[in-house]
Amino acid sequence: MEKPTLPKGTRDFGPIVMAKRQFILNTIRGVFQLFGFQPLETPAMESLSTLTGKYGEEGDQLLFKILNSGDFLKDVEQQSLNTKDSRLITNSISEKGLRYDLTVPFARYVVMNRHEIALPFKRYQLQPVWRADRPQKGRYREFYQCDADVVGTDSLLCEAEIILMIKTSFKALGITDYTIKINHRGILAGIAELVSANEKEASLYVAIDKLDKVGEEKVKEELLARGFAADSLITLFKILNFKGTTQAKIKFLTSEFNRSEKGKDGLKDFSEVLALLNEYGANEDQIEFDIALARGLSYYTGCIFEVKINNVAIGSVSGGGRYDNLTQAFGSKEKLSGVGISFGVDRLYDAMEELKLFPQETQISSTVLISHFDEESKRYGLGVLQTLRENGIASEIYPDPVKIQKQLDFANKKMIPYVIVIGSEEVKSGQLSVKTMKTGDQDKKSITEIISLLTDKQNRN
Amino acid sequence: MEKPTLPKGTRDFGPIVMAKRQFILNTIRGVFQLFGFQPLETPAMESLSTLTGKYGEEGDQLLFKILNSGDFLKDVEQQSLNTKDSRLITNSISEKGLRYDLTVPFARYVVMNRHEIALPFKRYQLQPVWRADRPQKGRYREFYQCDADVVGTDSLLCEAEIILMIKTSFKALGITDYTIKINHRGILAGIAELVSANEKEASLYVAIDKLDKVGEEKVKEELLARGFAADSLITLFKILNFKGTTQAKIKFLTSEFNRSEKGKDGLKDFSEVLALLNEYGANEDQIEFDIALARGLSYYTGCIFEVKINNVAIGSVSGGGRYDNLTQAFGSKEKLSGVGISFGVDRLYDAMEELKLFPQETQISSTVLISHFDEESKRYGLGVLQTLRENGIASEIYPDPVKIQKQLDFANKKMIPYVIVIGSEEVKSGQLSVKTMKTGDQDKKSITEIISLLTDKQNRN
Repeated sequence: MEKPTLPKGTRDFGPIVMAKRQFILNTIRGVFQLFGFQPLETPAMESLSTLTGKYGEEGDQLLFKILNSGDFLKDVEQQSLNTKDSRLITNSISEKGLRYDLTVPFARYVVMNRHEIALPFKRYQLQPVWRADRPQKGRYREFYQCDADVVGTDSLLCEAEIILMIKTSFKALGITDYTIKINHRGILAGIAELVSANEKEASLYVAIDKLDKVGEEKVKEELLARGFAADSLITLFKILNFKGTTQAKIKFLTSEFNRSEKGKDGLKDFSEVLALLNEYGANEDQIEFDIALARGLSYYTGCIFEVKINNVAIGSVSGGGRYDNLTQAFGSKEKLSGVGISFGVDRLYDAMEELKLFPQETQISSTVLISHFDEESKRYGLGVLQTLRENGIASEIYPDPVKIQKQLDFANKKMIPYVIVIGSEEVKSGQLSVKTMKTGDQDKKSITEIISLLTDKQNRN
Repeated sequence: MEKPTLPKGTRDFGPIVMAKRQFILNTIRGVFQLFGFQPLETPAMESLSTLTGKYGEEGDQLLFKILNSGDFLKDVEQQSLNTKDSRLITNSISEKGLRYDLTVPFARYVVMNRHEIALPFKRYQLQPVWRADRPQKGRYREFYQCDADVVGTDSLLCEAEIILMIKTSFKALGITDYTIKINHRGILAGIAELVSANEKEASLYVAIDKLDKVGEEKVKEELLARGFAADSLITLFKILNFKGTTQAKIKFLTSEFNRSEKGKDGLKDFSEVLALLNEYGANEDQIEFDIALARGLSYYTGCIFEVKINNVAIGSVSGGGRYDNLTQAFGSKEKLSGVGISFGVDRLYDAMEELKLFPQETQISSTVLISHFDEESKRYGLGVLQTLRENGIASEIYPDPVKIQKQLDFANKKMIPYVIVIGSEEVKSGQLSVKTMKTGDQDKKSITEIISLLTDKQNRN
């Protein structure tokens, strides 16, 4: 029999990795809840009618589709089978697909439960998504998204709170050197007006979005090829290349936008978000007004965000923005504006690993291993074990009668910090030998003393 | 456009349900960790070669299969398409399936990572599984399993700890009236010897397993039809119907098994587990020695468990047992004995809902809503909000300028227990009005007083 393998682009998470992932997920979940967001979970499978057409043509190709159960070919006509046209036949043999992101299922949930939802609705969702992308370093076919969205209000307080949530999360994760890039689709629309991009806004945003990766020359080439005039590109790069503080940029754009209403509105929104942050008592550290931030072709209409951790070779770890109409893709007539943020757990993990930011105590294991010389001391150890657990101290006993050294090796492998060694003397006196694995120190202590020592340590962590 | 729907047998979990589910999952996770189990997560998708043949023919039919990406029909021969044989063609167009349980992925993980794992290995896993079962009340196509297994030791301490984990979990969940049914496959093998079931053990266990549901007469009919002699059934039901305390049952079976080595061994194991429980200081409350418990055709070889909550119309909420050889299905030569337990979150949820066992505080929402009369008081509220959050108090502000009554209604709908009402007077004095929504009481308090009031309440919960 061949050794089993994992499907391409998927991963197991063993105990050590899980402990670190749980640290990230629990931290983000805690911040979301601190800010009044409530949890939602949706099924892994969605009807293909829910998913298809929401992610562009490329997205549709990347959906994992589930084969209908039972005799799925029964009702497929031989004629269509003869075409061997996979796309055509897919619709006859598959009705469900795997979740591709968390936004579309959220929109579907809101449409289906609209009458029960109190607006504004603040929900968070921490679940895996699946994409049939070509796997490569840092890109997986199954990965977690952590989303928080507020819908049903266009208050700019929500934008300010998104920024605060990023700051609060990163502080709790121990990440200090990062940049929250902010821009506004209205500002981009203003720039589009200035460079006469009428009808070509989408191409403009897509091109600008690549500036970081491909550089100015390539972007210029692309825009020229798409019919932008050479002199409009001079205007464009005069704006995109403007350097200065946030206030200097605002001043500069205010004068550039004197004939663009869209630009002025965008700038006003953006300035108000900064003013609100100030009211919260937050400063502008880590915040960068990035006029070239576009966030591709997505459905954003207002402020947009992207977060990069500095000095690590990892793309953005978080992004989001305001959209006009969450539920329109499902034909809802009510216009629900909202703003959301998404954290990429896998990239956060890679960055924190590179920066060695995971606390030592992240490792999930027992605090104590009880080891024993013989059957009598093992049985005595069971009462000790029970007492430790009753006091909330994660503990285990080595289950088999093996040499003490093997039991100590086991504790080292599992990174269990304390071993209680029990022999006939300990059974008699009730004074137990506690070995601190890191230092090798060994002390005699009563069970009460051990509990107070370990509870104390737990509280300090 | 049609209103979107959910795939059959799947569910969304909104905030209220999620809060209760998280309470169950966090409780069980906490107990698993207290007992020294470490977390594992495996991908939702597994290779069909990993899944197929592990769950019997019926199980194979219930696997959700994933259509290969891209032009999946390209390499399928027209000839096989002409057969319209769905089963035949499945193998050509699908290579992956969704996780059907947590045991097979665990076994695969152990085989793939054998050299890194320190034995005995205690792992827990809390993840959804998918089965293309016909949906019905209490049976879903996506549901969570919570498994804990120890592999790499045949120590009966593990069986005792499984029972302790059930007791500890149920205590923490607030479930008091339940029964842990225990039996041993050796005892069943002994009974099979007594009724001359040679070669027909499997039929015997399957029939016995239905006793609860279909009653004695039906089981007898089935066994007669399968070739059991009428007088052997008299022996069988004399044993199965024996009533008495655990000790009386052990005494009775000891005499019945005087010529069955398997029976004697099973009885000895079972008695040792009870003796060990006693050493832990645990009593035999809630434990029932159920001679008729068989747990179907599964791969168990030693002790078997099943937990039922009394006085609710819900099947077993937990089950498990000892198996001889976790990894043999993957051709591993090393024999890894283990013992495991699985909790069914959905059934636990239904039972706890029926028994009204969820604590009021389970609801996840903000503790405080800040409401405001005008723009000035809203801006003042932002500083208050920030201070509350810095003190770990989950809070939110109503983002839009609406009437106070609407803001209070919102707090009620979201079950937010406290509302701070801010108007121009509060801005001037710094004395804030705190409304307790449950009672309608309203007090003036400084922010420091509010924080100490709410922190105090949080600690008491």
